[in-house]
Amino acid sequence: MDGKMKAVLKKGATEGAQLVEVDVPTIGARDVLIEVQATSICGTDVHIYNWDEWSKSRVKPPYVFGHEFSGIVKEVGEAVTRVEVGDYVSAETHLVCHTCPQCLTGNYHICKNTKIIGVDTNGCFAEYVALPEQNLWKNPKNMPVSIASIQEPMGNAVHTVLNGEVAGKSVAIIGCGPIGLMAVGVAKAAGASQVLAFDVNEYRLELASQMGATVPIHSGECDPVEEALILTDGHGVDVVCEMSGHPVAMDQGFKMVTNGGRVSILSLPTTRVDLDITNDIVFKGITVQGITGRKMYETWQQVSRLLQSEQVDVKPIITHHLPLEDYELGFKLMNEGKCGKVVLYPHGVPTTTSEEVER
Amino acid sequence: MDGKMKAVLKKGATEGAQLVEVDVPTIGARDVLIEVQATSICGTDVHIYNWDEWSKSRVKPPYVFGHEFSGIVKEVGEAVTRVEVGDYVSAETHLVCHTCPQCLTGNYHICKNTKIIGVDTNGCFAEYVALPEQNLWKNPKNMPVSIASIQEPMGNAVHTVLNGEVAGKSVAIIGCGPIGLMAVGVAKAAGASQVLAFDVNEYRLELASQMGATVPIHSGECDPVEEALILTDGHGVDVVCEMSGHPVAMDQGFKMVTNGGRVSILSLPTTRVDLDITNDIVFKGITVQGITGRKMYETWQQVSRLLQSEQVDVKPIITHHLPLEDYELGFKLMNEGKCGKVVLYPHGVPTTTSEEVER
Amino acid sequence: MDGKMKAVLKKGATEGAQLVEVDVPTIGARDVLIEVQATSICGTDVHIYNWDEWSKSRVKPPYVFGHEFSGIVKEVGEAVTRVEVGDYVSAETHLVCHTCPQCLTGNYHICKNTKIIGVDTNGCFAEYVALPEQNLWKNPKNMPVSIASIQEPMGNAVHTVLNGEVAGKSVAIIGCGPIGLMAVGVAKAAGASQVLAFDVNEYRLELASQMGATVPIHSGECDPVEEALILTDGHGVDVVCEMSGHPVAMDQGFKMVTNGGRVSILSLPTTRVDLDITNDIVFKGITVQGITGRKMYETWQQVSRLLQSEQVDVKPIITHHLPLEDYELGFKLMNEGKCGKVVLYPHGVPTTTSEEVER
Amino acid sequence: MDGKMKAVLKKGATEGAQLVEVDVPTIGARDVLIEVQATSICGTDVHIYNWDEWSKSRVKPPYVFGHEFSGIVKEVGEAVTRVEVGDYVSAETHLVCHTCPQCLTGNYHICKNTKIIGVDTNGCFAEYVALPEQNLWKNPKNMPVSIASIQEPMGNAVHTVLNGEVAGKSVAIIGCGPIGLMAVGVAKAAGASQVLAFDVNEYRLELASQMGATVPIHSGECDPVEEALILTDGHGVDVVCEMSGHPVAMDQGFKMVTNGGRVSILSLPTTRVDLDITNDIVFKGITVQGITGRKMYETWQQVSRLLQSEQVDVKPIITHHLPLEDYELGFKLMNEGKCGKVVLYPHGVPTTTSEEVER
Repeated sequence: MDGKMKAVLKKGATEGAQLVEVDVPTIGARDVLIEVQATSICGTDVHIYNWDEWSKSRVKPPYVFGHEFSGIVKEVGEAVTRVEVGDYVSAETHLVCHTCPQCLTGNYHICKNTKIIGVDTNGCFAEYVALPEQNLWKNPKNMPVSIASIQEPMGNAVHTVLNGEVAGKSVAIIGCGPIGLMAVGVAKAAGASQVLAFDVNEYRLELASQMGATVPIHSGECDPVEEALILTDGHGVDVVCEMSGHPVAMDQGFKMVTNGGRVSILSLPTTRVDLDITNDIVFKGITVQGITGRKMYETWQQVSRLLQSEQVDVKPIITHHLPLEDYELGFKLMNEGKCGKVVLYPHGVPTTTSEEVER
Repeated sequence: MDGKMKAVLKKGATEGAQLVEVDVPTIGARDVLIEVQATSICGTDVHIYNWDEWSKSRVKPPYVFGHEFSGIVKEVGEAVTRVEVGDYVSAETHLVCHTCPQCLTGNYHICKNTKIIGVDTNGCFAEYVALPEQNLWKNPKNMPVSIASIQEPMGNAVHTVLNGEVAGKSVAIIGCGPIGLMAVGVAKAAGASQVLAFDVNEYRLELASQMGATVPIHSGECDPVEEALILTDGHGVDVVCEMSGHPVAMDQGFKMVTNGGRVSILSLPTTRVDLDITNDIVFKGITVQGITGRKMYETWQQVSRLLQSEQVDVKPIITHHLPLEDYELGFKLMNEGKCGKVVLYPHGVPTTTSEEVER
Repeated sequence: MDGKMKAVLKKGATEGAQLVEVDVPTIGARDVLIEVQATSICGTDVHIYNWDEWSKSRVKPPYVFGHEFSGIVKEVGEAVTRVEVGDYVSAETHLVCHTCPQCLTGNYHICKNTKIIGVDTNGCFAEYVALPEQNLWKNPKNMPVSIASIQEPMGNAVHTVLNGEVAGKSVAIIGCGPIGLMAVGVAKAAGASQVLAFDVNEYRLELASQMGATVPIHSGECDPVEEALILTDGHGVDVVCEMSGHPVAMDQGFKMVTNGGRVSILSLPTTRVDLDITNDIVFKGITVQGITGRKMYETWQQVSRLLQSEQVDVKPIITHHLPLEDYELGFKLMNEGKCGKVVLYPHGVPTTTSEEVER
Repeated sequence: MDGKMKAVLKKGATEGAQLVEVDVPTIGARDVLIEVQATSICGTDVHIYNWDEWSKSRVKPPYVFGHEFSGIVKEVGEAVTRVEVGDYVSAETHLVCHTCPQCLTGNYHICKNTKIIGVDTNGCFAEYVALPEQNLWKNPKNMPVSIASIQEPMGNAVHTVLNGEVAGKSVAIIGCGPIGLMAVGVAKAAGASQVLAFDVNEYRLELASQMGATVPIHSGECDPVEEALILTDGHGVDVVCEMSGHPVAMDQGFKMVTNGGRVSILSLPTTRVDLDITNDIVFKGITVQGITGRKMYETWQQVSRLLQSEQVDVKPIITHHLPLEDYELGFKLMNEGKCGKVVLYPHGVPTTTSEEVER
């Protein structure tokens, strides 16, 4: 497909981004060109937009960013075998090497040579995106494009929550950003007997309640550890999902987990964090898990089923639907924390409120 | 406590049982005497009542049978430390040795020297029962006595369903007797995306729907394997819980499970069963689990939480509440299969419909 | 590479095979041409050679069979990225679809659309073989070509033995064909406290001793179950690896496993097998695993490390080294059971006894 | 048993201890009196002897300390059922409550109400010790008393190393005190392909070699992380067992573990430790485990089998055999780090070198 397309470009090493016309990408033998129907803004995109320290050290403008999306396959390379023109797809963001020991043992999500779409390569804040076929995930035809787009971050939530037993257990979600909110819904669906949701943002605690939190807890207005102990008859919670990245909140997570419990960390604290390893990890005999990406593609399958069966309803989390042209408003909302997920539409916002458009 | 009590006695080596007066049991240093509030009829009790082949080979009348109950601690032996007079308790049915390799590794439920309450020792179809303190499970005060009584069989359902991953998976329950019905509720609560319930009894398939089965399937009116494949897009089910004990149904379970799936068998077929090991187990790479009893006391904790949190509502399964004196009616209902659980009350049927009697 | 090559062809639907000249295979964009250095005979090849019932129903002559080998990459297709000309490789035998739920969850070894090299496609009893790059495994340069060739069946042994805990446990290997013999060595290396090896062939029991079996047991000259109980102080063995395929031996495995133990079945009985599910699976609370293929490529990594570190010495199992031209002798030895592994060399038998040829 | 006995008493809140005569302990209904044959000095005993900060806050003199031993049952309480007079036993050090959620799920080793023998109660640096029967472990008759005594710390090593897969993996043991040395032997026996042993004490690195370390590494004379990467072809180690308690060494452990690896921490750092959670835990997707005590009694069974089968030979670690009267020399050796395990004998040092005394 020749020609031009709209794209949100990270043009240079400064704050912000620009809507420009660029060439539609070309594809290699194993690649696929996709028409982007919906693309959602991730916290990582906000870092890049704001041009923070991490972005400066990692990202090389000019390039198109964005990595969460859903769309339709328009062209396939000559060696492509797994997808066809017309398929409705989303994509795994990790580009992996297939040759390191991690890849060879099926642990692609922790490939030692991972590149990330929209960070290290051109992304999907555009009308079209080109990707290797092995990164594509086929969506069911009746899934709304906005929901299909947020499967990628929902994968983070699912990977974190379901990385151990949940049924009949008490679960704390620390940090109720969009992924934390999805984690609340996932924990509930997976049979958690109690879901304690912690944050300092009232707007998001309200969304946590909508997602099924047993008790939303404002960490700034009480002692979160004491609260967790009270709510669990003094025993502590069985599973802590750390999604805040704040050293203080993280330490509270280690204090509130019960002996033999699990602390699964998805967040990325920007500094080293000091812990009471003797009392909070060793004597308690707990398990701590670092969580990154999504298992390829076990997590995607879990996400798809939880959505298809309507066990998790993520609609309350998608708070804003905007045309791609309004990307600046999207980033403003994200920076203010007054939103759940913000979805952008390069080819126009669907007109039906339900979005239940057949494709 | 001296004196006499009512009890349903398996008097001799013949069909039936008799309501008689017997001595209230005496207790040893580590034992506890419990006033039975509610006691429910298990399939095992029906075998003993009917005096089938298995009973003849195992049971030694005269003795009091029955093993599912809830009640109040009335007396404790002098070396008892874990419970007190007034505690509201139910009991694990397995009396274990604490010295075999299985017990020493915490696998009490598969102790090589297991005795069973109400089978090998005097049971709870009576006003009082004496048990070792280590078999008691403390109930929350607000749990109705009938529900507290059926925690033991619910433990079988929980042990079977939760013996592997369930969230986001398709689960088949083969056989919808009371434990199968509870398994439907447990699978649903634990996040199964689909619960297929199989039986040939319309009454029980209707209860399966009430318990949350996605699709109740009459195994006599269709090809159950084909049906399961259709409902799973041709892939087969992820988890099969075999609770029927019928060789044909069991074989169907092995045919409907997907590659890499799990077949957990709680049922006890009365004959040897022939399987296509090459095609249904080896090439499929599945896992087959034998399930017996309840993990002591991990399963009890799971049961208690699933009930306390109201994730599983077992009330639809408790179809009959009778005074102990009507035990013959209870066994008649069980033999006819026109019931869920039948609960007997040695000290009178609670008068409130809700049974929410504070103790 | 144009031209002709020697190959052992399964020419028609009759017993035997023929050494003939055929075209060197051509390769597609993602394929690789390999010069075969060593190729070993598998039991499956013997079935095909003998033209048994299974072969008649599955295999479509004329074609080149054989699937275990090691060799050097001679040509790569234009889309190949993971291997280069000159690489020293062996290959996984399963050709998988990458699109079924099993493949999508990383369980390639139980892909629902598996084809097998040398069974469903042309194989490696030839001077050259063409394969998709994704099936290749890179060998360390100092690994002898015969040992590199038998990594594939050793993968079956490793997959079976290491599919659960082994350290400090008692392990029974039932059936001491080449894979059973490798399983003995793997169990020993992985910390089994006892390895009981069962067979009815003295020649192979002698090899089992060489591989480290604690006790080799002739199943025809004692009661194997009783023997296993005596050797485990009456407790039974913790892990049974069933590699015989005989219904009687399989049943013995289920009788000798202890409560809570594991029975991992790699063998492929040719008939249905009847089991005492109630007593041997359910009451015992055991786990039964169907084992097929090798985890791709977790098992290959384990095999490679166990060989590289010299924890398992497979040399005693490789009893015969023959030029490819002597394939008929190889099949005769296999049919008579008077051998371990038989290795064929299309380009000549290495002259050094140690085979430690640098490549 | 009335009368007096020798005992090493922690008399008051000062450094040191005294050999005195005290009353032989009396026993309760569920307790057992044991004649101590051998008792070994643990690092915890050294803390108490030295009267460090931790001891001051925890220990209440006067009392008899010591908790590792082997001995013969001399008297049993009237409710005791699991052991008899004449049994040859050692003991688990954790006194647990049996009523907390951890105990109820079989996780006694992380009981929330744990008391420790010789720390919170009278211990075994004496001719006799009284203990609850449920803490006793029966030893095989042919096990030397010194080896039976050090099963308790060996249990720590086994619990740490075997708390995940080991076969075919690379394992780093950081800190080669007696437990670290035993961990080297356990990792080797359990099939580790590489065992890297780190310490700064030449004496102990020499012992590590004797126990089977592939490479002993002096952490003060190289960059341990770089060394580990070189030895693993740049991949990092699969399993790190942290037994040093030094924040710097611990951080090195997190740097040397490979993506998806396991860090099991047995050590008890005396200060908070700061970690690079983002890069060393989350992005790597590793699992961190706190390890305390021994699984009751799964770990004891593993220890017993590894010793009985002679898979682990701990004799090189037992460097000193002393009469109880020489306890001060024992503590001096421990404080100087010029020893492995020091064993004290209240009833005289066995005269045979092999100690293979039949009991």
